Amino acid sequence: MLDCIIVGSGLAGISAALTLQANGKTFELFGSSELSSKIYRAEKIHNYPGLSDISGEAFCNALKAQLAEAKISINTQKVAGVYALKDKFTVMTQEGNTFEGKTVILALGVETIKPIQGETEFLGRGVSYCATCDGFLYKGKTIAVVCTSKALEHEIAHLAGFAEKVYLIPMYKGESFQAPNVEKIMKMPVKIDGERKANKLVFAAPPSENIPQELPVDGVFMLKESISPAALVAGLETKDGHVVVDRGMNTNLKGCFAAGDCTGRPYQYTKAAGEGNVAAYSVTAYCAANKE
Amino acid sequence: MLDCIIVGSGLAGISAALTLQANGKTFELFGSSELSSKIYRAEKIHNYPGLSDISGEAFCNALKAQLAEAKISINTQKVAGVYALKDKFTVMTQEGNTFEGKTVILALGVETIKPIQGETEFLGRGVSYCATCDGFLYKGKTIAVVCTSKALEHEIAHLAGFAEKVYLIPMYKGESFQAPNVEKIMKMPVKIDGERKANKLVFAAPPSENIPQELPVDGVFMLKESISPAALVAGLETKDGHVVVDRGMNTNLKGCFAAGDCTGRPYQYTKAAGEGNVAAYSVTAYCAANKE
Repeated sequence: MLDCIIVGSGLAGISAALTLQANGKTFELFGSSELSSKIYRAEKIHNYPGLSDISGEAFCNALKAQLAEAKISINTQKVAGVYALKDKFTVMTQEGNTFEGKTVILALGVETIKPIQGETEFLGRGVSYCATCDGFLYKGKTIAVVCTSKALEHEIAHLAGFAEKVYLIPMYKGESFQAPNVEKIMKMPVKIDGERKANKLVFAAPPSENIPQELPVDGVFMLKESISPAALVAGLETKDGHVVVDRGMNTNLKGCFAAGDCTGRPYQYTKAAGEGNVAAYSVTAYCAANKE
Repeated sequence: MLDCIIVGSGLAGISAALTLQANGKTFELFGSSELSSKIYRAEKIHNYPGLSDISGEAFCNALKAQLAEAKISINTQKVAGVYALKDKFTVMTQEGNTFEGKTVILALGVETIKPIQGETEFLGRGVSYCATCDGFLYKGKTIAVVCTSKALEHEIAHLAGFAEKVYLIPMYKGESFQAPNVEKIMKMPVKIDGERKANKLVFAAPPSENIPQELPVDGVFMLKESISPAALVAGLETKDGHVVVDRGMNTNLKGCFAAGDCTGRPYQYTKAAGEGNVAAYSVTAYCAANKE
């Protein structure tokens, strides 16, 4: 069994991994091969001690090189759920694999795009966050896919392999995905509506008219980079969408720690790195105190 | 009046200064021109995200360059006391100057050398931490000076200007201070003794004998780089020598924040940088909420 499973490869997750490695702990680091699109897209970072006015891209490259030097690799499977058992945690991925750890560090980041109206209400009833989990349910159907990041375009491909027709609503710049059964819609989605199940996506009306524009669909996929902590870990205490932690980065679940933006403001790289460091030390102390 | 006074130029203080500067706040940063002898002396730092296996010296140089680029200078006067008034703080330096700030960030580091027996007991009665404050009291007298850092050698010079005879006990490598009335003693001090006032410094006995060796003196100066938070700020809540803070780096004194090693373990650069960042955001919010 691993000492720790880290979920997230932003600065909090990377900082935790570097410190766990230095402390001789075993772990799996789940995240993206580009680490963090938030860092990558940052134009200039002005207040990270030690790196003067660095671009996000250069910072990402420095972090990738540092992980490679420390022989830390990133598992790019997407974490679908974290389950707290008696004295361990089981992490399941969307790819269907399971991993076991004595502890977990949640470094999930924060979703800057708020849920649209109806999104939470119809979740599991025509609304899904997970292409690989639920894609097959829409074989031969018509779906809308709201995608928030270029890094998630492979999930659109997965969905286009099942659905008859995909309406793609890209919420990022530089989208380049193309497939015969995928039609792009460059409008702002504001609401998911339906009766027992979601059956339409509603767009904001242009300023000149007052009639919202509706798109009839069999289902809506919301592809996001960050995962809501409460949706990922059953029983986790959150407040205003943030994981509640103490000064040692302990959550309400014994052995489950959290760090970075998911624990609350300020949403800052330096703060996230510091919290990842503290969480790694708490994991180290936890493992020492809970030896078999 | 300044928005903030930062006491300490280790990673917590530097991080706070960079963020306050980015946030457009006014502040004075008190510290050492070499920033932090702890960082400077570090052989290699393995787990600071973004800087792979950097030496302490290279890290210090990068931080100095970053401060210069951000047009942040360090005030090298030594802070002698921080006084919480109704809605502001007054900071006094050993040089006799005063500074006023709406808020204070304590980034004091931690004294890794524990007090020796009798040190706290005789403080103010023959034991002093402050050469410039108390040196004149020992004009023509015999004193012992226990010095913990090369950066403090100028204080020995100050004392040697008053005292008739100085016994110097250097607790660091590479000491090079010389003066006609200064005699070096390369022994380990273990106790300060006396009656109403301290009048002798006791050294550890060599393994071959059991008799401690005593040095009769009129006073003992303990020159240390870090200052005990409770000794510096009256009314500050501490626990086991650490400043008690919440997740926003608030101390028990309104408008007084703390960050870095002085708030407790782990004593880590990344953690200190993160806490300095959070403290700076708390100061920014505090100033916005307490506008005149």
